[in-house]
Amino acid sequence: MSTRVSVADLQSFCVEALLRAGAKESHARTVAEVLVMTDTWGTFTHGTKLLRDYVKRVKSGGLRSDTDPTVVAGGPAWAIVDGGSCLAHVTSVFAMQQAIERAKKTGIAYVGVRNSCHFGAAGYYAWLAAKEGLIGVSMANDIPSVAAPGSRRSVTGSNPIAYAVPTGSGDPILLDMASSTVAGGKVYAAYQRGEPIPNNWILDEEGRPSTDSSLYPAKAALQPFANHKGYGIALLIETLSGLLTGAQVTWQVGSWIWGDATKPTGHGAAFIAIDIATMGPREVFEARINDLIGEIHAAPTADGVEQVLVPHEKEWKRRRKAMVDGIDLPSDVAGKLAGLADDVDLHPAWLPRATP
Amino acid sequence: MSTRVSVADLQSFCVEALLRAGAKESHARTVAEVLVMTDTWGTFTHGTKLLRDYVKRVKSGGLRSDTDPTVVAGGPAWAIVDGGSCLAHVTSVFAMQQAIERAKKTGIAYVGVRNSCHFGAAGYYAWLAAKEGLIGVSMANDIPSVAAPGSRRSVTGSNPIAYAVPTGSGDPILLDMASSTVAGGKVYAAYQRGEPIPNNWILDEEGRPSTDSSLYPAKAALQPFANHKGYGIALLIETLSGLLTGAQVTWQVGSWIWGDATKPTGHGAAFIAIDIATMGPREVFEARINDLIGEIHAAPTADGVEQVLVPHEKEWKRRRKAMVDGIDLPSDVAGKLAGLADDVDLHPAWLPRATP
Repeated sequence: MSTRVSVADLQSFCVEALLRAGAKESHARTVAEVLVMTDTWGTFTHGTKLLRDYVKRVKSGGLRSDTDPTVVAGGPAWAIVDGGSCLAHVTSVFAMQQAIERAKKTGIAYVGVRNSCHFGAAGYYAWLAAKEGLIGVSMANDIPSVAAPGSRRSVTGSNPIAYAVPTGSGDPILLDMASSTVAGGKVYAAYQRGEPIPNNWILDEEGRPSTDSSLYPAKAALQPFANHKGYGIALLIETLSGLLTGAQVTWQVGSWIWGDATKPTGHGAAFIAIDIATMGPREVFEARINDLIGEIHAAPTADGVEQVLVPHEKEWKRRRKAMVDGIDLPSDVAGKLAGLADDVDLHPAWLPRATP
Repeated sequence: MSTRVSVADLQSFCVEALLRAGAKESHARTVAEVLVMTDTWGTFTHGTKLLRDYVKRVKSGGLRSDTDPTVVAGGPAWAIVDGGSCLAHVTSVFAMQQAIERAKKTGIAYVGVRNSCHFGAAGYYAWLAAKEGLIGVSMANDIPSVAAPGSRRSVTGSNPIAYAVPTGSGDPILLDMASSTVAGGKVYAAYQRGEPIPNNWILDEEGRPSTDSSLYPAKAALQPFANHKGYGIALLIETLSGLLTGAQVTWQVGSWIWGDATKPTGHGAAFIAIDIATMGPREVFEARINDLIGEIHAAPTADGVEQVLVPHEKEWKRRRKAMVDGIDLPSDVAGKLAGLADDVDLHPAWLPRATP
């Protein structure tokens, strides 16, 4: 059973909940925009489902909204941003904007972030660059939840990385992936829905593959995607997001859900923008990428497959539908929002009350 | 059965074979250095095994050695290099050096390459940056050999990407991976050795997983690693190596092994360098990364595993042994070199003659 809500109503609810928790309006609007956009894509593990826990941290002081992220070091093609423990979506939008501005002058720019927190879906920030005609890359570290090849317990975070490439008048190509086989949120969502999981998602406490989603996170580690490949990518993300920025790394990072909500988590992140127009005529690039997309769409398909797609095509289609018909929130998301509604005593008509 | 050879003897043989094919000495030395270093790591699929086919292209004119790669456009933080169909190792070393020089001034730099060819192991060029204290990333496109999710045939190249991170006095962390589950060279090597392959390496002509290595490449496509993740990474590599550089993309790229050896292949590549010292004290970064490596080495291991390693630790250990004891070339590599020896009429004492 799902709960249907319009994009505008869901956004208003998120803004108001954050305001009641003590966030300032500009921050509340940014966080709501990121989370609701993520829901319109159908990426419900990383959208408004997370708001209740962000709000708890804002109320408790672990996330701040009385300050703003700042550039603490930098040059024409790079910067280090101190998030000041602000809501991480605010810090991440600021950091990617810094990267975009710089890359428009220099061709490429790197912006590293420290004193951040969980930033939701990495893909949103990569998309910010693509929206302005640049190639964007975004990534962040997190407290360990993923095994390394040969380890018995978690070694790296599920460190996500996303990229987006503009295509002119069409939808950007966008890939957003965890360095684990799946993000922890998907294991947790399967547990909440009572569903079994494939045996390449988690390892039990002995380091053996398991299909029991209830083990995660206390008694299981996620598996890295493609074994040494996911592990290696996680270490690159740790390097660019954590080691190079002065952020906390691995076990020093606080758990944003289960940790002390009065304390900052110290997450790191990194944003890279590459300006296509600096390097050649934009029309040439756009013609070439649209030729490539056409070629992919025309590729012979396996039985039962209508068309080969480029990354995020399904999500852009879902978003267009959501903008017209509203979003169908799955029950686990509606349940989290109902809990949040109680926490901040805000009860819109579209949201079923939490079952007592 | 393997063939033991010293690093110096193998290098001399490669240089001399290239000279006899018509390569100029500086180019011959660079190619030999890249290929032999790759063999010292034990990455035999991408080392001197490939030299016979490179030499064939040099002799036939598809690879040139009478010219040099040049910067055709650029700014302080980026450049586009035209390889002029030179041996791709020469072009790639030149391009990464351009990226390193620029990044030392700007913090980060991107160098895209067109008119290149197969460049061997991507990791070598990433390592060039790490050797100078920078983080290096290298990648290249190739003619399609890898399926996309839902496709029946190849859609992207096995587009490799590598990164390297310096650690101060210790060995750099280095990851080099294809966007397929394994590089095509590994399927071909398994076929040559008569070994079966796991069922997530290739798809047959109906798009079904297969363990029959003889199908590749004519009647099979490689599988992308972790399905949509490997496919998505391949498209990012295609974008940065091909679309942005003016190189050929997907089916326009020539097959460097099976294609017309008199014609250039038109491969693209991309190199990114990030300068650690620009962004903060080098000692701080080195202390942090060595703490992280120490933490990983101390992680609890699964049964039968001695220690959790960081990427390329095994390869650096193999290299140290090879520098002292020589390299044990597997029979498929020695066989290829014996064929090359006949082609250029150069017969060193350490190399068994090709069986007629």
